[in-house]
Amino acid sequence: MSLEESSHYSIEHFFIALALILIFSKVFGELAERIKQPSVLGELVAGVILGGSVLAIVPSVPGMLGYDTFHLLAEVGVAILLFEIGLETDLKDLIKVGFTSTIVAIIGVVVPFALGFASILVFEKYGMLGNVDPNFTILIAITAGATLTATSVGITARVLSDMNRLQSGEAKIILGAAVIDDILGLIILGVVSGLIESSESGVGVGGGVSAASVGIIFLKAFGFLIAAIVIGNLTSKRLFNLVEKMRVRGVLLLSAISFAFIFSYLASLVGLAPIVGAFAAGLVLANTHQFKSIEERIKPVADVFTPIFFIMVGAAVDVSVFNPFVKENIPILIIALVLFIVAVVGKLLSGLGVFQKGIKKSVIGVGMIPRGEVGLIFAQVGLTYGVFTSELFSAVTVMVMLTTFIAPPLLKIMFARGGDTAEDSA
Amino acid sequence: MSLEESSHYSIEHFFIALALILIFSKVFGELAERIKQPSVLGELVAGVILGGSVLAIVPSVPGMLGYDTFHLLAEVGVAILLFEIGLETDLKDLIKVGFTSTIVAIIGVVVPFALGFASILVFEKYGMLGNVDPNFTILIAITAGATLTATSVGITARVLSDMNRLQSGEAKIILGAAVIDDILGLIILGVVSGLIESSESGVGVGGGVSAASVGIIFLKAFGFLIAAIVIGNLTSKRLFNLVEKMRVRGVLLLSAISFAFIFSYLASLVGLAPIVGAFAAGLVLANTHQFKSIEERIKPVADVFTPIFFIMVGAAVDVSVFNPFVKENIPILIIALVLFIVAVVGKLLSGLGVFQKGIKKSVIGVGMIPRGEVGLIFAQVGLTYGVFTSELFSAVTVMVMLTTFIAPPLLKIMFARGGDTAEDSA
Repeated sequence: MSLEESSHYSIEHFFIALALILIFSKVFGELAERIKQPSVLGELVAGVILGGSVLAIVPSVPGMLGYDTFHLLAEVGVAILLFEIGLETDLKDLIKVGFTSTIVAIIGVVVPFALGFASILVFEKYGMLGNVDPNFTILIAITAGATLTATSVGITARVLSDMNRLQSGEAKIILGAAVIDDILGLIILGVVSGLIESSESGVGVGGGVSAASVGIIFLKAFGFLIAAIVIGNLTSKRLFNLVEKMRVRGVLLLSAISFAFIFSYLASLVGLAPIVGAFAAGLVLANTHQFKSIEERIKPVADVFTPIFFIMVGAAVDVSVFNPFVKENIPILIIALVLFIVAVVGKLLSGLGVFQKGIKKSVIGVGMIPRGEVGLIFAQVGLTYGVFTSELFSAVTVMVMLTTFIAPPLLKIMFARGGDTAEDSA
Repeated sequence: MSLEESSHYSIEHFFIALALILIFSKVFGELAERIKQPSVLGELVAGVILGGSVLAIVPSVPGMLGYDTFHLLAEVGVAILLFEIGLETDLKDLIKVGFTSTIVAIIGVVVPFALGFASILVFEKYGMLGNVDPNFTILIAITAGATLTATSVGITARVLSDMNRLQSGEAKIILGAAVIDDILGLIILGVVSGLIESSESGVGVGGGVSAASVGIIFLKAFGFLIAAIVIGNLTSKRLFNLVEKMRVRGVLLLSAISFAFIFSYLASLVGLAPIVGAFAAGLVLANTHQFKSIEERIKPVADVFTPIFFIMVGAAVDVSVFNPFVKENIPILIIALVLFIVAVVGKLLSGLGVFQKGIKKSVIGVGMIPRGEVGLIFAQVGLTYGVFTSELFSAVTVMVMLTTFIAPPLLKIMFARGGDTAEDSA
């Protein structure tokens, strides 16, 4: 077949890359468990090894041949994971902790933002940001602060699921806070994008964002969630009773997955992360008579797709930036370390918003630590529009990675300790 | 997220396209079953509707945004289907009918090739090919003949599986013949590519292909199959007993799928279709102690992936070419119809190679009718190197589609008739 063109990702590559993704994720997941670590940590490490900066088996950088395909599959993987978790979650429990989740989400957004903002001003004072136009310092600080706000719930959800802790009070608060966090992230993205665009057009900071436009973003996101859950609950039982009457093979599973994908699609349309839609779909289908069968059949599908997500997260790590013997890496690593500390402290403090008895504040705080795609999107926007230098961009990327890798082992320790303060276990 | 680039296939599109693929394939599959047709026929029709020439929801033409991703997933889908079918097939049964399968494959390659070759000479005589350099007629005839040779076993395998006929003698012969067919197709592709390349460089037909190079292609393909099955059988039991000792979730399923993907990869490396490798992997794992668990867990995964293959096959159909009121379509449709008849007759005759009692020759013949990717690859090569006019290319595409759509209903009728000639049922 030598006469074929080679401008596309070949089917051979695809098969072997998929095989290695599945093998590496299971082997490293197993190794992690053997040394009493969450298996997802092993999968992340496997991703680093398969990624562009080590073995380069998985296309890990946008623009690489085949990257789009793996990226799309990774998104499907994490959506199926959150759908599965939604299926195991009772909406009533979420609503019960709704107020607490909201407080946790707000603290976890405001504190890291403020600390990140302040850090950038300090860096600027000591000339660590390089040659930066002083008029832009505030905009840089706002954008960097924004990268610290959004929690990526995939990692935490996976650890909670693996530890059979999805039914704990902590899990409910974290899941609820993650949904609210995504809405807040959306609003911040709207504001920051507006600020950057207006500064580009010379209007100056603050000129481009109206309260009305922020309100519209909020209403769209919130309206979607309410509508999805209400309309979903009204129609899903009848729909799935109809599905049960069909004879073709696999129809229940495929209907459930399609349901999740449509919700993911609608969430994307209003600007939310697809996983928020998938999670809502799971919450809705948890009320159908067929939810046990759906849960059982979705498991093998999740087993195939979700490792792709965790491998791709790991694969995005560029290990060369961690080499302290390369002079250029030093300022990047210092900034990254400070932002990382700020990121961890900020989310840990969010646990203080919990006043329920028997809930471990530290678990909540740690569960909110992982940052992910939304942070990277902010960094990408900053880089594209010249607000971030490539060093600051790299530092943010490193911060995101560190938060992702630190959360699984910390969560395991926190849960194992059986209560971290006298007050918590009271 | 308006600041992102849009040069890649968006995640929203991907989610909604996947959802519609799954929904359409099940709804049309159900409709097909209700009118007593195989559900795969419904899925093919669903593909036509979702494809570029009707709703354009699924990117169905190479080069379209997102096409590569769906194409790769379709290949994975049909590989998982053949892996599943391999799991349900006993290698000993295949070897038992090996001689018969070989005869069936050879007749089914030689007869359609000869008939196709002759048809092109007739078309040329009556000026139906347009302005063609007479020196090239033989090369055109050879390439067109080649497009008629290779059976695409995915459709037939699916129908046999849906009808619970995989354990029938007919199914074994068809599966064995399809594997041999792929090896023969490979040799023909080597020969035709060589002829085309040597005619390009002015050496003239016949100059570029040595018996040695054909021998090497054959040895590589055949060697792979033997080695895969022998080494696979020697190692797989130990390997899967080891896998059973691992604790992480989904490890058995993912090991089995990785095994199938690695075999698919190796098959591609020697030039065979990936599905031949996946089928061999299934045959090997059918001998492990874990094969029942593997079979059970692969089902939901197959349910998700295989519809993508059948939808993509249907989506490739350009319905506009069937409009007889467009003058340009008339010669295309006439040539396509003749090639289609030749394609059907040629494969039906291959059933005559069967001399076992109790085997329906007609089922074998019909089961070998569907042409697929390999035929289209020949046509693509012909078009790229200027051997085929775009009309002849379109005609071949239509022929491939017609064979694909005719086979499922014919197979159902043939099996239902319970014996088609006195000799058969004797």
